[in-house]
Amino acid sequence: MALSEFDIITRYFTRPSRRPDVVLGVGDDGALLRVPAGMELVVTIDTLVSGIHFPPATDPYDIGWKTLAVSLSDLAAMGAEPAWATLALTLPEADAAWLTAFSRGLFDLADQYGVALIGGDTTRGPLAVTLQAHGLVPTGQALRRAGARPGDRVYVTGTLGDATLALPQDRRDPSAEVAYLLGRLDRPTPRVAAGLALRGIASAVIDISDGLGADLGHILEASGVGAVVWLERIPRSPALKALSPSWEIVTAGGDDYELCVVIPHDRLDQLSQVWPAAGCDLTPIGEIQTSPGLIWLDAEGNPALFANTGFRHFP
Amino acid sequence: MALSEFDIITRYFTRPSRRPDVVLGVGDDGALLRVPAGMELVVTIDTLVSGIHFPPATDPYDIGWKTLAVSLSDLAAMGAEPAWATLALTLPEADAAWLTAFSRGLFDLADQYGVALIGGDTTRGPLAVTLQAHGLVPTGQALRRAGARPGDRVYVTGTLGDATLALPQDRRDPSAEVAYLLGRLDRPTPRVAAGLALRGIASAVIDISDGLGADLGHILEASGVGAVVWLERIPRSPALKALSPSWEIVTAGGDDYELCVVIPHDRLDQLSQVWPAAGCDLTPIGEIQTSPGLIWLDAEGNPALFANTGFRHFP
Repeated sequence: MALSEFDIITRYFTRPSRRPDVVLGVGDDGALLRVPAGMELVVTIDTLVSGIHFPPATDPYDIGWKTLAVSLSDLAAMGAEPAWATLALTLPEADAAWLTAFSRGLFDLADQYGVALIGGDTTRGPLAVTLQAHGLVPTGQALRRAGARPGDRVYVTGTLGDATLALPQDRRDPSAEVAYLLGRLDRPTPRVAAGLALRGIASAVIDISDGLGADLGHILEASGVGAVVWLERIPRSPALKALSPSWEIVTAGGDDYELCVVIPHDRLDQLSQVWPAAGCDLTPIGEIQTSPGLIWLDAEGNPALFANTGFRHFP
Repeated sequence: MALSEFDIITRYFTRPSRRPDVVLGVGDDGALLRVPAGMELVVTIDTLVSGIHFPPATDPYDIGWKTLAVSLSDLAAMGAEPAWATLALTLPEADAAWLTAFSRGLFDLADQYGVALIGGDTTRGPLAVTLQAHGLVPTGQALRRAGARPGDRVYVTGTLGDATLALPQDRRDPSAEVAYLLGRLDRPTPRVAAGLALRGIASAVIDISDGLGADLGHILEASGVGAVVWLERIPRSPALKALSPSWEIVTAGGDDYELCVVIPHDRLDQLSQVWPAAGCDLTPIGEIQTSPGLIWLDAEGNPALFANTGFRHFP
């Protein structure tokens, strides 16, 4: 049976919202929302294109999950509490099984963070998903890229490189290592609680979507500083250690959606009090310096020479 | 010379914002915005796909213009004042000439309404443009679809059918009629001032993107009412009258981005006072009735029989 655009919206993407700040959700010319007094609004939009950001045969549940996860990761990096999402879905055909799985993956993650889907657009064309996430942060408390100062410590949440190492793995491999890596690639965990814990503490934060080198580089450029990072200190999962000795994967591999965090030395006491609520590890890996550039140091403290280029869409 | 994703954002889409409500625009993990006290936020997201919503060879200036125009039309239908936009752009290649023209078209319209481009995403893939527009409306004053009551009058702004009639025209035709129709298709005028004028007056408003029958049908369904519309009263441009006698084009043709407006009888005095600021015509075409359904009446007042189906993406 053919599904109309209206059927798709009604069956798969319309649910009653429990959020009092949603005055009007899906079903009018626009959604109508209330931003509470004393809060600023954070918005971020991301597109996942089939064949570029995920293989065409990817489980639609995972596409739905990841579509929201990458945007919640941006909100986390701003210290914002997730609130609402809009979804622009371009589909080659209206496939009920695909839509059921996709919307389940999206809503399973949305429900974890109390995110309401408030609007969207459904069009026909090559498979692509664009999602805008909206978050709230107390006025003046957003975490930015520009704020790192010489002497500040550089940290990362979780472990790096797992998602990139998952790409070449055989999906039929039954080993625990491969299952772990694929989970990291397909269903990343946005570090929302970590972002909330870092309000008032971090001097700069970014989420690692294009690789540590590229993303820490954005902090350095925006802050007008440089940094050293000790390669051996970059946290790596047991699975990654077992399967790859490559530093490129750890420093340039994207798609992990961990946070790179810069914290002034005199706030480390404050950090230790709030961090237990973050639900993940935070590992010191380097230090901000006055002189520009990012220097990787090997185990002996010497500059390490290896290729490090983050993921770029063009050329 | 190859353009990186960062070059594209910097060269074509980053401009200093003059809006004090934009705390942080393009260049961090998310944009940071202030919604003034006493205002509600209206958001709407739309995708235009190459080959579906516009021919691949469309002038990129027009694609940029129309991408924003269709979203501003949704804000107009909510009675919201345009404020900010985010842009998710999927491109097969980074073509400097294309990007120059596209961004000029987008910003030319944005500047007319003081809209700031606050964020976006640039990805590689089949050409598609998704834009989310954000508007502001005083709390409780948004114009909705659900509110039409029996006895209310039905109006439309401007003229209908022009954009649909433009589609089969030969673009090399030098006649004034064809030039007029193509202008209506390529560079629609969002009825923003009309939407603002209708606050506190209209009982229901929708923008006509899928055709009068389909879109007025949404108002009737949301409001739990029916309507009669006199075909002869539907405003048609001289160009349309000269080139097509078809009622289908006028009642089912989409893409005009005019407003369909429902107004209670006792607010017509109020309307006549504010309407001059709207900058377009408003024509009465019908009346809301208790019994459900939409009935088209011919010149003799008899139900007219003809095919009327709005544009649908699926199937």
